[in-house]
Amino acid sequence: MNTIPAPDHGVREAALAHSNAQAKPVGALGRLEELGAWLAACQGACPPEPLTDVRVVVFAGDHDVAAAGVSAYPVEVTPAMVHGILAGGAGVSALARSVGATVSVYDLGVRTLEGVPDEVRRFHVRPARAIHLEDALTEAELDAALTAGDTLAAEAIADGAQVLIAGDLGIGNTTPAAALVAATLGLRGADVAGRGTGITDAALTAKAALIDQALDRLGDRADDPLQRLAALGSADIAAAVGFMAGAARRGVPVVVDGLIASAEALQADALAPGARAWMVAGHRSPEPGCALAQAHLDLDPILDLGMRLGEGSGAVLAVGVLQASVAALREVTLLADL
Amino acid sequence: MNTIPAPDHGVREAALAHSNAQAKPVGALGRLEELGAWLAACQGACPPEPLTDVRVVVFAGDHDVAAAGVSAYPVEVTPAMVHGILAGGAGVSALARSVGATVSVYDLGVRTLEGVPDEVRRFHVRPARAIHLEDALTEAELDAALTAGDTLAAEAIADGAQVLIAGDLGIGNTTPAAALVAATLGLRGADVAGRGTGITDAALTAKAALIDQALDRLGDRADDPLQRLAALGSADIAAAVGFMAGAARRGVPVVVDGLIASAEALQADALAPGARAWMVAGHRSPEPGCALAQAHLDLDPILDLGMRLGEGSGAVLAVGVLQASVAALREVTLLADL
Repeated sequence: MNTIPAPDHGVREAALAHSNAQAKPVGALGRLEELGAWLAACQGACPPEPLTDVRVVVFAGDHDVAAAGVSAYPVEVTPAMVHGILAGGAGVSALARSVGATVSVYDLGVRTLEGVPDEVRRFHVRPARAIHLEDALTEAELDAALTAGDTLAAEAIADGAQVLIAGDLGIGNTTPAAALVAATLGLRGADVAGRGTGITDAALTAKAALIDQALDRLGDRADDPLQRLAALGSADIAAAVGFMAGAARRGVPVVVDGLIASAEALQADALAPGARAWMVAGHRSPEPGCALAQAHLDLDPILDLGMRLGEGSGAVLAVGVLQASVAALREVTLLADL
Repeated sequence: MNTIPAPDHGVREAALAHSNAQAKPVGALGRLEELGAWLAACQGACPPEPLTDVRVVVFAGDHDVAAAGVSAYPVEVTPAMVHGILAGGAGVSALARSVGATVSVYDLGVRTLEGVPDEVRRFHVRPARAIHLEDALTEAELDAALTAGDTLAAEAIADGAQVLIAGDLGIGNTTPAAALVAATLGLRGADVAGRGTGITDAALTAKAALIDQALDRLGDRADDPLQRLAALGSADIAAAVGFMAGAARRGVPVVVDGLIASAEALQADALAPGARAWMVAGHRSPEPGCALAQAHLDLDPILDLGMRLGEGSGAVLAVGVLQASVAALREVTLLADL
């Protein structure tokens, strides 16, 4: 629980001063100026380097709560979408190519997954247990998942990654994510349950009740970040938490996607206080838990386009805006040079 | 005043159907799906071609109202920023490079402009007269400016432009733009006056009063699109109106920037009814007239990042999202092929 130091304040101030000296009215690029200064502070250099190495790591896993009817899709979709990502044909694949980012995917609890490279199954574990009935993970499983995510962050950073994005994939995953937001913020199922992939009114009511059942089962363990993550989370979610905390600990910025990633960001900041300063919210999804988690972290989303695909898709779309913020800081003439 | 036919409805429906057949929940890419379908409809082809030829044309002009203290900057900034654009060091230059768009600039009323290529001064006219005292343009000047913009749209399209953006440049230009929004929507100065480049409270009050004076002088000519444009506009604004209408008339989509462009879009749609169907709002600026004009046109901005630079900067930043919407439509696997 060591506090993570914030991005370099002096560099941030220098970047804002540079921006104010450019040939434009002070503040006229709005949020772009703030984003550019944040990236400069994260890199510890003004102007920051162009963002040419952005990586999305998708954490895939199945969730036994899906058997309780909380999703509109069957669990067979999870391995099919892992293959879709490997083939470059998923939503996140297309959006990542459009900003020059890369995508990889890891199995952190897919029930059945065949015909994939060994690397993808390197951290394979069993699916998360049904959170309304029992804890999703044992303490040892939680620890392994957190370490897996941290390892993936470390490897990507050692290999040159400048920005990291955790993507999610797994039928049923909005239920544990919403439950984690509720447990962290002291809310109930009805506050956080959303339609996920598109469930009916009746299924939405049942989903809220299932989250309440999980919260009641959790009890006052809700206040312990590790216990609530083991009880309500999953290996894929915990790995992403370890990934985000690992990025922040190593001084690499993270772009946070929708509900799942925002729930993970909440847990990463609880486990590694200060991690939030290394995060920006790329997109706000329509899931109610997403806005609640982002607001708690003081993360104001760059985009709000009604996307609810997961996979890191909203975050990767926002990378274009981050790249533009760096371009503005690097390339706009100084007023003195006009 | 011929009505402009809408983008191809059948192609739009085919694009939405294609999107619904892709390996993702129906509607999960939110606004991206709608934008991709709109671009397909504009191009008359599904999937649409990637957006590799996007052009920003900046219309620069001075405004005699600036002498009345409505701007925080001296008029010498206008020619300096024309040179900044030509040198590639303006805000819009940096943002355009980040999405692969190109920028050109034309003098439509810059008071003093030296050392620029002849092409830039091809449509040179005198600055717009002070709108609270007299009509900005004569009927002949208005006609010439509208034709200049239409000519530039026609030339760009003949040369392969897939998307057009009108950028604005000129100290004092938020005053005529706000006045045009007020005249079109039946509002008063206090409803539309904003801080532009960053004026004081006292200057803001004076700006609203000046707009009211211009509106009172206009009287019931407000209902005639050509008369209100001549009375309250300028050659640079009128040329951009002609440019937008010319793009729509030739079936080429337009990304609308902040206040100035939104005021121009209002006039383009009034002069060429139906033009709005070829437009998307790239960004909502903090200027109150911007949101009013966009709402009247039913244009929901893609971005809302507090930018207020003009030059087409907010619109060009949104091009990245449009490019991603095309990538999604072209590249995401069909569910049937998973």
